[in-house]
Amino acid sequence: MTKTETVGWIGTGVMGSSMCQHLLNNGHKVAVFNRTRSKAEPLVKMGAEWCDTPADVAEKSRIIFSIVGYPKDVRQVFLGESGILSKAEAGSCIVDMTTSTPALAVHIHNKAQEMEIDSIDAPVSGGDTGAREGKLAIMAGGKPEAFERVRPYFELMGENIKLMGGPGKGQHTKMCNQTLIASTMIGVVESLLYAHKAGMDMEKVISVIGKGAASSWSINNLGPRIARGDFDPGFFIKHFVKDMRIALDEARRMEVTLPGLALAEQFYTSAMAMGFENLGTQGLYKVLERMNGG
Amino acid sequence: MTKTETVGWIGTGVMGSSMCQHLLNNGHKVAVFNRTRSKAEPLVKMGAEWCDTPADVAEKSRIIFSIVGYPKDVRQVFLGESGILSKAEAGSCIVDMTTSTPALAVHIHNKAQEMEIDSIDAPVSGGDTGAREGKLAIMAGGKPEAFERVRPYFELMGENIKLMGGPGKGQHTKMCNQTLIASTMIGVVESLLYAHKAGMDMEKVISVIGKGAASSWSINNLGPRIARGDFDPGFFIKHFVKDMRIALDEARRMEVTLPGLALAEQFYTSAMAMGFENLGTQGLYKVLERMNGG
Repeated sequence: MTKTETVGWIGTGVMGSSMCQHLLNNGHKVAVFNRTRSKAEPLVKMGAEWCDTPADVAEKSRIIFSIVGYPKDVRQVFLGESGILSKAEAGSCIVDMTTSTPALAVHIHNKAQEMEIDSIDAPVSGGDTGAREGKLAIMAGGKPEAFERVRPYFELMGENIKLMGGPGKGQHTKMCNQTLIASTMIGVVESLLYAHKAGMDMEKVISVIGKGAASSWSINNLGPRIARGDFDPGFFIKHFVKDMRIALDEARRMEVTLPGLALAEQFYTSAMAMGFENLGTQGLYKVLERMNGG
Repeated sequence: MTKTETVGWIGTGVMGSSMCQHLLNNGHKVAVFNRTRSKAEPLVKMGAEWCDTPADVAEKSRIIFSIVGYPKDVRQVFLGESGILSKAEAGSCIVDMTTSTPALAVHIHNKAQEMEIDSIDAPVSGGDTGAREGKLAIMAGGKPEAFERVRPYFELMGENIKLMGGPGKGQHTKMCNQTLIASTMIGVVESLLYAHKAGMDMEKVISVIGKGAASSWSINNLGPRIARGDFDPGFFIKHFVKDMRIALDEARRMEVTLPGLALAEQFYTSAMAMGFENLGTQGLYKVLERMNGG
């Protein structure tokens, strides 16, 4: 990692903007692209160089990070007509930090390898706060040499940084993470609805069940928000639905049945149908409430 | 709380024995009964006085604790022919610490009130370790005066001790706790099965997903046991099934639908059918494994 070398950054949403800022704040030169240019302006004001396409970013930098929305966006950014791989040179390294499909990560890795380009899939967890504070968990998949090459950049963005295996394994780990959250959230909203229906104070119940064998990040962080009727997004329902559907697709591909994840996906699909897509994941409580006549 | 007064104790299983020991170790006189006498012998050797029936315990003590197996045992101990209420005097206080039904707790409370006897339902959480170390969570329901009367005894057994509301509310809180654990456990076993099927090392995956928004007591304490193939009981599947069925019955009584809890109960019923009733709750992994051809 030399600071004279320009780093590429594609995707300046809430997560990407914070992550890219850490690079700028540490003195790196950055070439930036985002589909909606206005969202990249704050970074440009901080010194990042604007590029009109992902291909332009690839022309200016040999290490390129991306964090965009959906797998179709990842495909566009890397494999599209003005995509990164249309211009990236041999010896470059591409790093997709979007939560996307393991299969696509492997596909991009294989395409890149044919061009002698390194490729890492490295989705994150920790939300907007983690991104802002440089405390993300980063779950990487790819070759160890490629991982070591980009690790210094990861260390500016995160704290719990691990190479989980070969190409796609970063994405697979993120799917494990989301699968675990999915059923935990069902437990959270069902236990709080039970508490409410049994005539108890939710916060008091959380103060007991949040400490022992039932404790989780979700009950202790999202539970009190539900108790206060605060459904603002930390993590959007619409994004969580995307993740669960990727996990279910991959599970089907592996012929693995995950009934709890399937139930959670159905619950959250119901949340989408009720117009709650822009609520935080704790908005699942409102679905259960309506199912129970509320 | 005076140490010259004899305290009654009914139920000397793994939990009850440890809890009662704390009373003896603190200098209290104890009158003890257990259905299987041999299990009470260690306490008798420590100085507890053996009684042949719950009624005999009630004759010797004005504050009587019980922690037995199933609601039918609770009914027998309190309302049966040689039960506590057949002999307890006005001014006594009965405390059932079994995880049992809220409706039965209310019923016993009402019967006791007619006899001018105080009644508290106070199920615990924290398992055999919590009981041994005097670190249980104790969730109580009943009248505040009655709770204050027995609180000094609770403080010898636990740390997180709360009066949750009127009669039955201790049991309701425990049901919230078990409902939360039920779906969380589905998330734990599904995420670890996914990890395994995707060719990843479970312990490495736990080291990442166990730290952020997906973290829970279950993934961090039971996950590593699953990874090691250790299915020994901390908490027996057969007891967890009892608890989930009580929670579902109460939910039905309140006309509340809890689909995640219902799914978990079905999964664990499958565990019973497969002969896993004496495994720990992490044995759910084996059910999912078999469902997936393992």
